[in-house]
Amino acid sequence: MVIKMKGIIMIIDGMADRPLEELGGKTPLEAAKTPNMDKMAELGVNGIMDSIQPGIRPGSDTAHLSILGYDPYQVYTGRGPFEAAGVGVEVMPGDIAFRCNFSTASEDGTITDRRAGRIREGTDQLAETLNTMGLEEDVQVIFKESTGHRAVLVLRGPGLSDQISDADPKHEGKKYKEVVGLDDSPQAQKTSRILNRVIKKSYQLLKEHPINMERTKKGEPPANIVLPRGAGAVPNAQPFNEKYNLKSACIAETGLIQGIAQIVGMDIIEVEGATGGVDTNLDNITNSILLNATLDYDFLLINIDGADEAGHDGNLQEKVEFIEKVDEVIGKVMELEDVYFILTADHSTPIAVMDHTGDPVPLVIKGPGVRVDAVNQFHERAAASGGLCRIRGSDIMNILLDLMNRSSKFGA
Amino acid sequence: MVIKMKGIIMIIDGMADRPLEELGGKTPLEAAKTPNMDKMAELGVNGIMDSIQPGIRPGSDTAHLSILGYDPYQVYTGRGPFEAAGVGVEVMPGDIAFRCNFSTASEDGTITDRRAGRIREGTDQLAETLNTMGLEEDVQVIFKESTGHRAVLVLRGPGLSDQISDADPKHEGKKYKEVVGLDDSPQAQKTSRILNRVIKKSYQLLKEHPINMERTKKGEPPANIVLPRGAGAVPNAQPFNEKYNLKSACIAETGLIQGIAQIVGMDIIEVEGATGGVDTNLDNITNSILLNATLDYDFLLINIDGADEAGHDGNLQEKVEFIEKVDEVIGKVMELEDVYFILTADHSTPIAVMDHTGDPVPLVIKGPGVRVDAVNQFHERAAASGGLCRIRGSDIMNILLDLMNRSSKFGA
Repeated sequence: MVIKMKGIIMIIDGMADRPLEELGGKTPLEAAKTPNMDKMAELGVNGIMDSIQPGIRPGSDTAHLSILGYDPYQVYTGRGPFEAAGVGVEVMPGDIAFRCNFSTASEDGTITDRRAGRIREGTDQLAETLNTMGLEEDVQVIFKESTGHRAVLVLRGPGLSDQISDADPKHEGKKYKEVVGLDDSPQAQKTSRILNRVIKKSYQLLKEHPINMERTKKGEPPANIVLPRGAGAVPNAQPFNEKYNLKSACIAETGLIQGIAQIVGMDIIEVEGATGGVDTNLDNITNSILLNATLDYDFLLINIDGADEAGHDGNLQEKVEFIEKVDEVIGKVMELEDVYFILTADHSTPIAVMDHTGDPVPLVIKGPGVRVDAVNQFHERAAASGGLCRIRGSDIMNILLDLMNRSSKFGA
Repeated sequence: MVIKMKGIIMIIDGMADRPLEELGGKTPLEAAKTPNMDKMAELGVNGIMDSIQPGIRPGSDTAHLSILGYDPYQVYTGRGPFEAAGVGVEVMPGDIAFRCNFSTASEDGTITDRRAGRIREGTDQLAETLNTMGLEEDVQVIFKESTGHRAVLVLRGPGLSDQISDADPKHEGKKYKEVVGLDDSPQAQKTSRILNRVIKKSYQLLKEHPINMERTKKGEPPANIVLPRGAGAVPNAQPFNEKYNLKSACIAETGLIQGIAQIVGMDIIEVEGATGGVDTNLDNITNSILLNATLDYDFLLINIDGADEAGHDGNLQEKVEFIEKVDEVIGKVMELEDVYFILTADHSTPIAVMDHTGDPVPLVIKGPGVRVDAVNQFHERAAASGGLCRIRGSDIMNILLDLMNRSSKFGA
């Protein structure tokens, strides 16, 4: 009987780094005690990977798209669609999606607080009220709250364009901007016309909203207007399951990665206590991986975010400690049978840079038949001498499908 | 305070080679004593590079274009434009440029000497006279002498095309060829019509030119006609400084590389005594690098040509000796602070082939935060086990900008 192999790609967000003087010239991943990752390097075939291309600084979103086999230069039309999908709006190809702020406006449209006093509570009710707008012309208007003062707006209907300007004036004390088309198309005209009305209506619907009446009473700036920016058209990406003939799910902590998974049509598994920070509940994440790997999924995409957060904060100790904690997750996932298991990062987030860089990341593939190499540690430098040499994110799904024996031959 | 890092790419033209029996199986770079390059390998991250693609034999021009981040298959329209720029014609996008010979023609147009007796003196005066042509129709005609019997011709005006044939008959004793359009476009017709008149006029203007009267008196063949070949349209390449937001300069010895730099809009630094041969003045080149690196340039492209010349000549001893001399230049450039320094070659010019080959070249990057690897010698084979693995010329600027912290993130 042929065993049907499963595939797991586990991405430790921003784990890779650069050598640091304070670690005696080691990287955090080199310095961390990672017996399980090292064991995986020993049992697998190793290499370094450029998520997009050598030297290109990837976002987590564009890196994941590339690793899943989508060309980010084609598919990534801006952050709006992925953010909207990430907060749970079931976006559809052709939708125009925006990132929005709940802001505070005076009667004449002057923005007095771009973040409405960093409002944290009640934005779900504000979004619910905004959704009573329903249709503008033949276009459906969909609001959804995100974290804090953030929200998303999706316009769905015929003849829309993402070639329109932002309403957000970027500075307080200025009036919000009238949205205009960035080209002369009737689509851009229609979209900007509708959006300008939506903004005006948001003020009408929110200015005396109970949530805002209460805020005003407490001396807090009311969240009485919505300012969209970063228009992007939801791309027509071929669904992942159809593209690869796989049944797939994504276990990710952040809306950004969940948004990617949603747009390509993967099932999204929520994990309780997954915060996306170094305080996340790794036990729950581990259990979710182990459980879902036994269900009828062929493929799991896993993203664990804490190392990236520590990198952005420039917090070396937290980064090292979190990598060591993640190592325990790896140890348990390695015990799964009949699985090709790929461990990597989406990009480097060096402590010394506090942002993503274009340095390649280490990658290891464990599973039956791989050409095990001499590498027996999992880190940036050891991986560079591995049997995979240097590959790209866009190679990974092809390599995995080939190992899973799910590829078809090109030619005879 | 954040230190603004500079970038230097130093290209030792044609330095890479193949193993040679007479060196006991070593390459010239392996055999040469290069303590400074080896030190740089030890301090840096190493790899091999294909300037264009594995196995493709690059010209120095196409290799440099690729390393600077321009796709040579898009930008390199032929040698004419780069040669014209290299001899100092300020070419503009859309110009049609030709390489020309000063030749000797008889009254009926038969070419009796394609190189006019390899004329060396007075071609500047011939070019000056040819430039009195001024306009043909609405097209400006610009001549400029190059080395020996060579010259360039640039046509500047509306409605021109590079799809036209050569005038050079390639064999002596034949009449020069009437230029014809290679397609049916009115642009090709116009360009060939003008070019045929320019060739005729060159004969009229040169046949009794004082320089030629004197040559005839001395029994030397007169340089009495100009034969253009290799039409190319000057590409509309995005200026380097704009593309990367850098202030850049090029220190190069040959017109070919200076032409590349000029077409992409870099400042060109002339160095006295830089011959492009093994006899070049490396002290002056070193001083120019050290001086210009302290000026307000962000980026220097350096090309040193002697090793390529020795390779073309098949002169092993000269190649090894020149590499050893260049090593001293590297030693001094390595002392510069706050610089990312990339040392490489543009292509191999193996002694045994006496021409460029598609073998990859070694490359090392030195500077803060690079993932220093175990390589401690700088040559073709050592580099192949370095931390960069195998990259392409088109990756280099992306990698450098990322290290210089001048990249922007693609995505979130």
